[in-house]
Parts: sequence; C-alpha cells; structure tokens
Amino acid sequence: MAKTIAINAGSSSLKFQLIEMPSEEVIAKGQIERIGLSDSIFSLKFNGEKFENILDIKDHEQGIAYVLEQFKQHGVISDIQEITGVGHRVVAGGEWYNHSVVIDDDVMEKLQKLIDYAPLHEPANIVGIKTFKKLIPNALSVAVFDTAFHQTMPQVNYLYGLPYEYYTKYGARKYGAHGTSHRYISARAAEMLGKPLESLKIITLHLGAGSSITAIKDGKSFDTSMGFTPLAGVMMATRTGDIDPSLVNYIQEREGLTNEQMLEIMNKKSGLLGVSTISSDMRDLKEVAETNPHAKLAIDMWEDRVLRYIGQYIVEMGGVDVLVFSGGVGENSKEQRSHIIERLNFMGIKMDESKNDVYGKETILTAEGSTAEVLIVPTDEEIMIARDVESLKK
Amino acid sequence: MAKTIAINAGSSSLKFQLIEMPSEEVIAKGQIERIGLSDSIFSLKFNGEKFENILDIKDHEQGIAYVLEQFKQHGVISDIQEITGVGHRVVAGGEWYNHSVVIDDDVMEKLQKLIDYAPLHEPANIVGIKTFKKLIPNALSVAVFDTAFHQTMPQVNYLYGLPYEYYTKYGARKYGAHGTSHRYISARAAEMLGKPLESLKIITLHLGAGSSITAIKDGKSFDTSMGFTPLAGVMMATRTGDIDPSLVNYIQEREGLTNEQMLEIMNKKSGLLGVSTISSDMRDLKEVAETNPHAKLAIDMWEDRVLRYIGQYIVEMGGVDVLVFSGGVGENSKEQRSHIIERLNFMGIKMDESKNDVYGKETILTAEGSTAEVLIVPTDEEIMIARDVESLKK
Repeated sequence: MAKTIAINAGSSSLKFQLIEMPSEEVIAKGQIERIGLSDSIFSLKFNGEKFENILDIKDHEQGIAYVLEQFKQHGVISDIQEITGVGHRVVAGGEWYNHSVVIDDDVMEKLQKLIDYAPLHEPANIVGIKTFKKLIPNALSVAVFDTAFHQTMPQVNYLYGLPYEYYTKYGARKYGAHGTSHRYISARAAEMLGKPLESLKIITLHLGAGSSITAIKDGKSFDTSMGFTPLAGVMMATRTGDIDPSLVNYIQEREGLTNEQMLEIMNKKSGLLGVSTISSDMRDLKEVAETNPHAKLAIDMWEDRVLRYIGQYIVEMGGVDVLVFSGGVGENSKEQRSHIIERLNFMGIKMDESKNDVYGKETILTAEGSTAEVLIVPTDEEIMIARDVESLKK
Repeated sequence: MAKTIAINAGSSSLKFQLIEMPSEEVIAKGQIERIGLSDSIFSLKFNGEKFENILDIKDHEQGIAYVLEQFKQHGVISDIQEITGVGHRVVAGGEWYNHSVVIDDDVMEKLQKLIDYAPLHEPANIVGIKTFKKLIPNALSVAVFDTAFHQTMPQVNYLYGLPYEYYTKYGARKYGAHGTSHRYISARAAEMLGKPLESLKIITLHLGAGSSITAIKDGKSFDTSMGFTPLAGVMMATRTGDIDPSLVNYIQEREGLTNEQMLEIMNKKSGLLGVSTISSDMRDLKEVAETNPHAKLAIDMWEDRVLRYIGQYIVEMGGVDVLVFSGGVGENSKEQRSHIIERLNFMGIKMDESKNDVYGKETILTAEGSTAEVLIVPTDEEIMIARDVESLKK
C-alpha cells in the first residue's frame, strides 16, 4: 500500500498529512509554525497521541528533513521510501494549470514565473518541492494548484474592467483561490444529496480566516469571490476584501506607506481585525459583541459581505440548488449560518434550526419546503491532494 | 415668477439649465465644453433654436459671465435679477450634508475641506458658486450634493473592511454618487406606479457613461454601488468599477506609473474602452459586436456587472418590488434592458418586450405576472436642483 504526503507550505509554516492510499486513512498529521524563528513549533499527531517540540528551524528545507526524521523516530514509517507520493499545495497556477500535474523541469520553470502572483507563498512552495525531490527522489511529486479549479470561469467573469493589455502583459485577471476546497466540498455535497454534481447550481462558502465563495455550475467553477490575489472578495479575518480601488493610494499618500506596507495592512491588519480593532477571530468578537459596538459592526459587515456574494451568484447562475458552508467559521459558527440563511428566507431558502447545533460535522440543514439545500461540509484539501497524486500515478 | 438656474460644473465644463419655478418649465439650457482651451464650445437651446459659438474661455468665471451675457443677448432674460435662485450640483458632501443647503460661509469652508474627496470636481463647484454669488448676489445660492441622498446608508453598508482609524482620520467610507438622480427616479417611479415610495423596495439603475446602482428601501438609499469615489461599483464607459485592490500597485510598479497616472487610467482608460480597446460608447460597441470579440466581451462584462449588483441588492433588501432603468444607456439601450431582465426571469421578473422599443421615455415595461415592476424613467437632476432651491426659499 502506498503512503502519500500532502504538503501545504506557507511563508513561515509547513503543514503535512500522511495518508494511506487508496484507503484514504490519515496516518499522521502535523505542522511546523514560526519557521525562521528560534522558537519554531513542531507538532505531530499519530496513533491518538500528540507530540510537540519547540526548536530552532531555520528554513523549510531543515523543517522537512525534521518531519521525516520525526516520522521514523515515532514509528510512523520505518523507511522514507514508503512514501511514494508527495502532493504539494501550490497557491498560484496562473492560466497554465487547470488540474494537478506531475512536477517536471517545465513545471518548475513555470512555478518560478508564477512567483509574481503569490510572492509570499510560491517561493515556499518551490522550496518544499525541491527538498522532497532531494530527500525522496523516487516519490511522485505532484503540484495541486489552488487556482486550478477556477480555470473554468468564463472570460466575462474572470476579466477586470482594466485596459486589456494588462491582461495580456501581466496576466491581470481573476484567478480565485481555495480551489481544492471548493472542488472537494461541492463534490461531497452532491454525494451527500445523492444527486449528480453536474445537475446542481451550487454556492460553496469556504469561510475561515481566509474566505472565498464560489458559484459552481455544471460541476465547474463559474465565478469566485477572490480575485487576482486572495485579498479580494468578502471581508475576512484580516483582509479587506473588496474596497474602492482609489482608496489604496489615497491612504498610502496620507499615511506615508510604501506599496509593500499598504499591501501588508490590507492583508494583515484589515477585515474583522481592522473594523473591530480588537480581534481577527470571530469567536472573540462574538463573545463581546453585546457590549462592544465595534465587534458587533465587524460581525454584521462580515455576514453582509457574504450575503452580497450569495446574491450575486444566485443571479449570475440564474438560481441556486445548494448552499454549502465550510471552513473554520462556516463549519463551527451556527449563529452566522443562521443569520445568513435567515436573510435568504424571502426567496424560500430555509434551514432547520434544530439541526444547526453542530460543529465541523457533515450535516444536511435543509428545512422542509426549502427551495435550496443547505449543508455543512467540513473541507478536506489533503484528501483531494492525495487523490490527485494517486490518479497521476496511473 | 422665479427663474432658477441649475449649474453642473465639471473640471473643464459647465452645464446649465434655466427653469421657471414653480411651473418647472425649462426656459433655456446649454453648456460650455473645453473650458481652458482656445476652442471652448458654447451651446444654448432656447425657444426651439440652438446657438453655438466656438471661442476662447479661459476659466469657469469667464464662462459663467459669458452664459449670463448670452442669456441677455438672446432675450432669455432681460435682467440677471430675474434669476432668483442658483442651484449648484456639488459632487462631494461628505458626512456633513444629507440634504441640500443654502450656501453660507460655513458651507464654503466645508466645501474647501471636501476637495480631497473629489479633487477634479469640487474646485470647479467652488469657483461656480463664488462667481454666481458675485454676479447675482441677491439670488439664493444652494448646494445640491451628489452624495446627500446616500447618507441614509447604514454603517454596515458604507464602511469598508479597512482599519477603522482610516474612517475616523480620513473619512474612508462609501459615499456613493448620482444621489440626486437616484432620488428623482425612485420618486418618479413610485408616482408612475401610484404607490407610496416608502412601501417599495426599489433598485435604481443609473446607467450611462458613469453608472451607479442603488438599493432603495423605505424611500431611502440603503446601499449604492459607487464607493469612496465614483470609480467603484459596476464597470463603466471608461472606469474600472470594482477590481482586486492589490492590482493597483501591481500594475503601477510594472508600468512605472505615478499615483495620479494610475488613477487617470482607472478613471479614463478602463471600463468599456479598456476592455474593447476601441470605444467607450455602448452604441459603437453594439455596432461592431458581431464581428469584434473585444466589443462583444466588453458589452457582456458590462451587463454581467450590472446583474451582480442587482443580485446583491435583492438579497441585501430581502426582495425587490421595482427595477428602474435610467441614464443614457438605461434609457436608450433596449437590448441591454432585455438582456438584463431576461437573466432575472428565473426569479419571476419579466418585462413585456412589445413595450421595450422606446428611447428616453417614461415607460412601464412590466410583463403580466412579473414579481417586480420594470420601468424606464429618464433622469432629471436639474428639476430636482430647482425644486431644492425653491423649497429652501421658504
């Protein structure tokens, strides 16, 4: 039996999950946080136990070597050759990739060119790929792109109202993100409903620290809320989502901010955190919302921005059959699910409140007589990565 | 009887309309274009005749003096004292003004402070006000703000997902625009339907070279598509509308553009013009759309972006009772009206195609059995300006 490792490398983090295939059994999972700092945190879950170490991991290469060493030390594997596939989540695939691919020299070259689209993430992805190729050269190395699922969007949806030459020269268009998640939760929702995916108009709501909403028609991504980068769309934990584009330089000029600093503020200091001024975490805000008007406002805005996209996508698709909640907030925040669906009651979309008291569990929430199904589907990008690796072995 | 002049001063233009009040009869109207150039164009319509001059008008002050002189020369008035009211369209009113006001020293001071919000337009508005005050000191001088109608938006709708301090420090929020137009067409639509304005959920579609869409609930602006500036919202003739905010600096860096140049491109070289690469005028694009895929794409995107906002606002308001087309394209482009309403058929909104062959004429297009009314209401901001002046005389 083959073991596949799914890798999600961020700028200072590395998440991993070791999966037995084709049984899809998760053998071990964990992560390293704060890579590059002297107090990096390694954690590993295996056999019902959790191991944690704080140590100095200076870069991703060292981190990956450490993970494989820990696997052996804890008996997760006895030889690294047992790992026959490595699936890497890659943030930007541009227009080159509409599905996962085996990583060869040509792919490596294209990934270099894609750094511009995801300057924080793509370099970490590349280092991760190179390191695994060096350490386990016999394993199949596969890139699973966050943007691939959205490559089916029609041009009318992915193009911006900018001079066309910026598209041809710089690839300035909507690429979307969270594609692997939207692909997983839409397919799983169709399975749960026992209906062919292709027959459904689905709105998938991946609502977490990063949030994106996708309109799925004929089983394909038709439109999605994230844009050229994952900054656009709905307001998020620390990201602005959509704002008047003329505000970017307006604020920069007044605050004396460089482009880099402004991008950092829009990505890391805005959203729930920026509006509430106290926290980027929906749970914190909910705790104090009754007495803190800023927290209440941030939550209300967040719900409203989600609703705006639901409205857009219902009209863009000419209807909706299924709404699927996923992501940290979507899976665990019953109040937000209630508020959102309540405001869709006017069009006949209703959920059964008695089923809504669940956390991170596959659930059909649809009320009797509702014009659309309402579901919770916890996302599982790692399984999709492992499946893609498997299918490319053949 | 009193004559009121409605003034709309742009950065290099001045439009005027002389209206008899309270009869609301338009006595004369016209404009000066290309102010500041040696071949400024003055035109005047009066008594069924049209007069045109090409001459050197160096600034707005000289232009206004010329207009009043021409009024006398053509017998529009015999004495400038007949003009007892001057209503100025003012682009930005910030949070200070939720209705029209008589312009005193305090207002003048605030207008100076509002230049930041509309650097191209507000200075021309101020010069226009000062010049009329000098030339007709006895006439009542009134400011009619483009943003005033939208001041009823709830905070959850007008605030952006940015750090809250940018709102308190710089007023970074959504103000909207075209307020006088949305106010006029919503009120007129209710009149045409013989229903109280306050009882209707209305979506007003002001679609012209500049386009904005407003959700009107309880007779008040609840949300609108333009933002901090009139750049945001739907794609327009030459304006981008919404784009991923991270694209602004991304493009600037690659093209070596200053902030001013980038703002100019997003406002003047984008939208229909930018996408089609051939024209900002919907009529030009429609003529060649069958053979020019860029023109076709630009039209499709434009229609789609309008639909996105209709979808948003239906969900935000929890339904819609009336959709009103207005503005150059909204009033005159029957194909675009058809395409847009066709895509709303799925929710029961239908129009009677046999009534749609009209141009710039008040029309109820609603088909039998439609779940919402569909209307054309040609906008008339000047009448609203004159009415506001009248009501402030009392």
